[in-house]
Amino acid sequence: MRSFNRGALDLRPVTLTPGVSRYAEGSVQVEFGHTKVLVTCSTEERVPPHLVGKGTGWVTAEYGMLPRATHSRNQRESAKGKQTGRTMEIQRLIGRSLRAAVDLASLGPRTFTLDCDVLQADGGTRTASITGAYVALVLAIRSLQKAGTLTKPPKLTPLAAVSVGVVKGEVRVDLDYDEDSNADVDLNLVATADGRMVELQGTAEHQLFDRKTLDAMVDGGLAAIQQLVAAQAKVLG
Amino acid sequence: MRSFNRGALDLRPVTLTPGVSRYAEGSVQVEFGHTKVLVTCSTEERVPPHLVGKGTGWVTAEYGMLPRATHSRNQRESAKGKQTGRTMEIQRLIGRSLRAAVDLASLGPRTFTLDCDVLQADGGTRTASITGAYVALVLAIRSLQKAGTLTKPPKLTPLAAVSVGVVKGEVRVDLDYDEDSNADVDLNLVATADGRMVELQGTAEHQLFDRKTLDAMVDGGLAAIQQLVAAQAKVLG
Amino acid sequence: MRSFNRGALDLRPVTLTPGVSRYAEGSVQVEFGHTKVLVTCSTEERVPPHLVGKGTGWVTAEYGMLPRATHSRNQRESAKGKQTGRTMEIQRLIGRSLRAAVDLASLGPRTFTLDCDVLQADGGTRTASITGAYVALVLAIRSLQKAGTLTKPPKLTPLAAVSVGVVKGEVRVDLDYDEDSNADVDLNLVATADGRMVELQGTAEHQLFDRKTLDAMVDGGLAAIQQLVAAQAKVLG
Amino acid sequence: MRSFNRGALDLRPVTLTPGVSRYAEGSVQVEFGHTKVLVTCSTEERVPPHLVGKGTGWVTAEYGMLPRATHSRNQRESAKGKQTGRTMEIQRLIGRSLRAAVDLASLGPRTFTLDCDVLQADGGTRTASITGAYVALVLAIRSLQKAGTLTKPPKLTPLAAVSVGVVKGEVRVDLDYDEDSNADVDLNLVATADGRMVELQGTAEHQLFDRKTLDAMVDGGLAAIQQLVAAQAKVLG
Amino acid sequence: MRSFNRGALDLRPVTLTPGVSRYAEGSVQVEFGHTKVLVTCSTEERVPPHLVGKGTGWVTAEYGMLPRATHSRNQRESAKGKQTGRTMEIQRLIGRSLRAAVDLASLGPRTFTLDCDVLQADGGTRTASITGAYVALVLAIRSLQKAGTLTKPPKLTPLAAVSVGVVKGEVRVDLDYDEDSNADVDLNLVATADGRMVELQGTAEHQLFDRKTLDAMVDGGLAAIQQLVAAQAKVLG
Amino acid sequence: MRSFNRGALDLRPVTLTPGVSRYAEGSVQVEFGHTKVLVTCSTEERVPPHLVGKGTGWVTAEYGMLPRATHSRNQRESAKGKQTGRTMEIQRLIGRSLRAAVDLASLGPRTFTLDCDVLQADGGTRTASITGAYVALVLAIRSLQKAGTLTKPPKLTPLAAVSVGVVKGEVRVDLDYDEDSNADVDLNLVATADGRMVELQGTAEHQLFDRKTLDAMVDGGLAAIQQLVAAQAKVLG
Repeated sequence: MRSFNRGALDLRPVTLTPGVSRYAEGSVQVEFGHTKVLVTCSTEERVPPHLVGKGTGWVTAEYGMLPRATHSRNQRESAKGKQTGRTMEIQRLIGRSLRAAVDLASLGPRTFTLDCDVLQADGGTRTASITGAYVALVLAIRSLQKAGTLTKPPKLTPLAAVSVGVVKGEVRVDLDYDEDSNADVDLNLVATADGRMVELQGTAEHQLFDRKTLDAMVDGGLAAIQQLVAAQAKVLG
Repeated sequence: MRSFNRGALDLRPVTLTPGVSRYAEGSVQVEFGHTKVLVTCSTEERVPPHLVGKGTGWVTAEYGMLPRATHSRNQRESAKGKQTGRTMEIQRLIGRSLRAAVDLASLGPRTFTLDCDVLQADGGTRTASITGAYVALVLAIRSLQKAGTLTKPPKLTPLAAVSVGVVKGEVRVDLDYDEDSNADVDLNLVATADGRMVELQGTAEHQLFDRKTLDAMVDGGLAAIQQLVAAQAKVLG
Repeated sequence: MRSFNRGALDLRPVTLTPGVSRYAEGSVQVEFGHTKVLVTCSTEERVPPHLVGKGTGWVTAEYGMLPRATHSRNQRESAKGKQTGRTMEIQRLIGRSLRAAVDLASLGPRTFTLDCDVLQADGGTRTASITGAYVALVLAIRSLQKAGTLTKPPKLTPLAAVSVGVVKGEVRVDLDYDEDSNADVDLNLVATADGRMVELQGTAEHQLFDRKTLDAMVDGGLAAIQQLVAAQAKVLG
Repeated sequence: MRSFNRGALDLRPVTLTPGVSRYAEGSVQVEFGHTKVLVTCSTEERVPPHLVGKGTGWVTAEYGMLPRATHSRNQRESAKGKQTGRTMEIQRLIGRSLRAAVDLASLGPRTFTLDCDVLQADGGTRTASITGAYVALVLAIRSLQKAGTLTKPPKLTPLAAVSVGVVKGEVRVDLDYDEDSNADVDLNLVATADGRMVELQGTAEHQLFDRKTLDAMVDGGLAAIQQLVAAQAKVLG
Repeated sequence: MRSFNRGALDLRPVTLTPGVSRYAEGSVQVEFGHTKVLVTCSTEERVPPHLVGKGTGWVTAEYGMLPRATHSRNQRESAKGKQTGRTMEIQRLIGRSLRAAVDLASLGPRTFTLDCDVLQADGGTRTASITGAYVALVLAIRSLQKAGTLTKPPKLTPLAAVSVGVVKGEVRVDLDYDEDSNADVDLNLVATADGRMVELQGTAEHQLFDRKTLDAMVDGGLAAIQQLVAAQAKVLG
Repeated sequence: MRSFNRGALDLRPVTLTPGVSRYAEGSVQVEFGHTKVLVTCSTEERVPPHLVGKGTGWVTAEYGMLPRATHSRNQRESAKGKQTGRTMEIQRLIGRSLRAAVDLASLGPRTFTLDCDVLQADGGTRTASITGAYVALVLAIRSLQKAGTLTKPPKLTPLAAVSVGVVKGEVRVDLDYDEDSNADVDLNLVATADGRMVELQGTAEHQLFDRKTLDAMVDGGLAAIQQLVAAQAKVLG
């Protein structure tokens, strides 16, 4: 039996709580089952060096995990003096995904930084982060529009992310930590509700995967993403 | 008028929500007004090198702040590759304070690590951290007692912390961010309900302080700490 | 016209020169067109902490690029004092891929380290690295067998890697640097000759991709990988 | 019996030797018994970013200890690649204290950096540093006045620092290393000769302290500071 | 018998292969026996801060070694997060030597960076690097002259480098790794063909050396350098 | 006219003050004119990993400079988070030189660490450090003999170091900072009183040097070293 008593292609209960930060231009707490991520979107009136003078905006992301977000405590990255390869890989993925969600040129010369901090980790922290980050980004854009800083509404492409895997020979969607640790294949998918893909990262953990399995995983992932985009839309009104 | 419509010697509304982490041995979310800190206590069956073979336990603390806990975004310490002097100073203060709260010898050869992560910062993050850390530590101890790992109840000294300052010529307790930025004198006090002191750190920000002012600040701080220790006791049952 | 006067689904000229290092247990210089990577496989009679006492072996990889491997000079990572996120992402990918190429248990308690150093970069450095690393790994295994250190032949799964992309509306295989910089979609594929997949990483660079495009990219990639595995087999005899 | 055959509230022999550096704008070697600190004050015609354009000056401090300043050798911080939390805490304390000693606005847009390097450590290195730093700062100011760089004499607030503690149940002033290691309570006080306080940092080492003990420690500390400020005045003429 | 069947004062076979990099302004692969170094010279139209506005150019060098260039694998410096003292010492030596090879003023306000990366190490990597770097520098200068960036030919001082040592009581030139590990005295010499010296670094490894030995080593070194400069001249045409 | 009114081949006034540290096993303050270095020798009853179990001892050195030892202030290396190439080069030179001064096998399995900290720098800090380090090492050895830790007197080779250079066309010994900045050739020599050499490092700063100049520099250096070794002998009794 899967956690939350759900079927192989079902998501865990998903919660998106907007406005959790008193200070950030946009914010949301996103929960996929027991996984909880606090996402803030901060804006700055400047862009990275390679974009100076081009008039276009930038979206970037950082990812972190509280030391005891997990079953056992991990060393704090600031104390170690560097971010792990895993952290860098995830924040690069979040950044690329969110840059696909908005027409950067329409943002004007400013930077939107998405901080995704995992308060509790039970699998799927990167997909929850991306799903929440879309909401935080839109809220930050709205707050700039309200303040008159952004006058033209930027063109948005709603998107969300989900993990899929093969566990005990079965394709399953939105793996929790136990399933993730035992998956034979692991795939993270970022896409729109109409099935256009942004990122697709599949990994053979203990078993190579054939074309048929890939197809089944993509099918399951795209269906789940439709529900996640619907949940985002509900919160964003 | 002070925030939350309170008098010069009043605390902001204080909330202590225990058990917020599914995995940590002890945890609490502590709020002093808009300041929110997530505190977890993690236990490990080993001690630092200087205590190996002595049979005694250890209590240590780490402190962090989410990049957008504050009015404007701060660079992530893990991305900078080092902790700031302020962070180190605060986590050393929390660690010393909590070591005074428990008889280390009675903990057995194990380490209790208090992670204090500031989700939102509106002044008093170090005093809220200490106040919450006492609760998280006691909960972790109880969880080890329940599991049979700790058989004899350790001797505890309940303690809490509060900031005091001189703002516009007036001694005030539990400063929020605006007051803190404008305080002439700033004092952090860690103490027990019966007025025995653990840490006292007073700083002349814009104005030196005389003996009379010190006395008034200590009076105000000790009175507030009585209330904080009462709030802890209520939560701990 | 593509570089080397080739069709959309053709590889660049591929060269695998084994035995280029006088000291390493296994080595190869791999070239995909103008991209040149020197791969060595070094063995050590010990395993990482998490495998001590389990009898199983380990395969890991590191990736680097000479400062002037590229069109303009990049700062040396050792001088910067840290590896970039890109470097970490690539070396994690190489390591995971090669661990799928061999039955770790059959290696005995020893570590095989694949160092992939890019001498010249014209696109596809990570796929050339993986393709070469398989050769270097097999050569190192053979050298240990010859020396009598490894007595039972480990079970191997030949695999190779190729990049695929959508450039000017066309699915193309093995992109060079110019194509890579202008690709709308970018996909790296690691697989066996019979089409079982190890890693699949697709990214929408300037344009989301639909299911049909994904299918065409996977088709093109798998066909190219058949040729790469044949080239490896020829070199390995 | 205390070192140097002194009473509980007596200082160790204090020496202030000005002008020990041939190059620094101001310098002094300060000795509190066997504790020896070389303090230089360097001036620069620029200010930190947050003060640019405000016309005001800045005073900052750095603290270091030679590896064999202590009973046993400590690892060199430059070799470790980072400063310890203790070092950071101390240099922040020295900097804050010295900023209280001078009207920053009257310094003009320049920075005074106080380097306090401990040549030999027998307790009280931070209080000796602050006491010496005041002398070095005044000498540097005078040297700038002499050179005509500073035309108006800045407003100065003479101050000094001393440690106080409870050792064997007795309040003692200016602890040496042995006393410091065995103190039940430890307090560092920075103040003026007329009893106005700049910094007050009290810590319960092995025993909480009550109000009466605090009062006795502050009394002892303020009396000692009168003597230290007198010693400074004598040297400064 | 020495490697390559040579006499005490003979060089190993020396190869200089120019133009090995498709992108660098100048490049060469230099081999001294089994020692192989890839040297590139990159140019940039800017100078370090201390030369801005002076119209003069700059030449600098960086040195690295692939992890498995040596008999056993060394940890990658980028993974360690810092360069070793040995690496820094060598790259400072290469930089100083090459700055002596060209009239910096005649280069105009631009920087020439020599990257010397050791692909295989069998002794003499620093002397091979310097010998190759001179070739790469000249090739880069020529490429800038051809492009019209440099209009006046800079004044050059051809130079090369060789190691000399005392092994088994005998002065030997161009030591390989085995000889180097067993040398009693070790000397690196950088000079011109007509015997003017640029750098001379002699070290007593296991035995002090007298004046007569120094003289014999310098004699042997200068003779070998004549041959190396001739080899450079042949390649440079 | 040279500083201290001396001839081209004369040393500056040299002072060696032994026993300046209350805690170190051996210590000396060495002054070459205005250059002042505090040298301590610390002993530890263990050896580096590569010597464990071999019964032999080790001698190593570290070098540092106080931030304002020089005419203008340098950034503190511990604050920068790394040692410069110059620092590493110098401490490697000191370590190698001192290992030549004593028969390591006779030291037993212990490490002697020489900390050379420059209090004031007016040229020749590395040669003063080596000259002082020999004294500190001998004092530490004697202190271990006195304590009975070392029972057999180790075999010592007295040595010292001096800088030589070509300034305004003249060979000069023991350059001060002004001369050093303007030298055309710069040579550091470490040797014994009877002219056996340990280290010889010559560098063409603005002008290549021929054989005759090298000879004159070595002559001048060796003569000066005789005087330095005599000064050491006088202090060591």
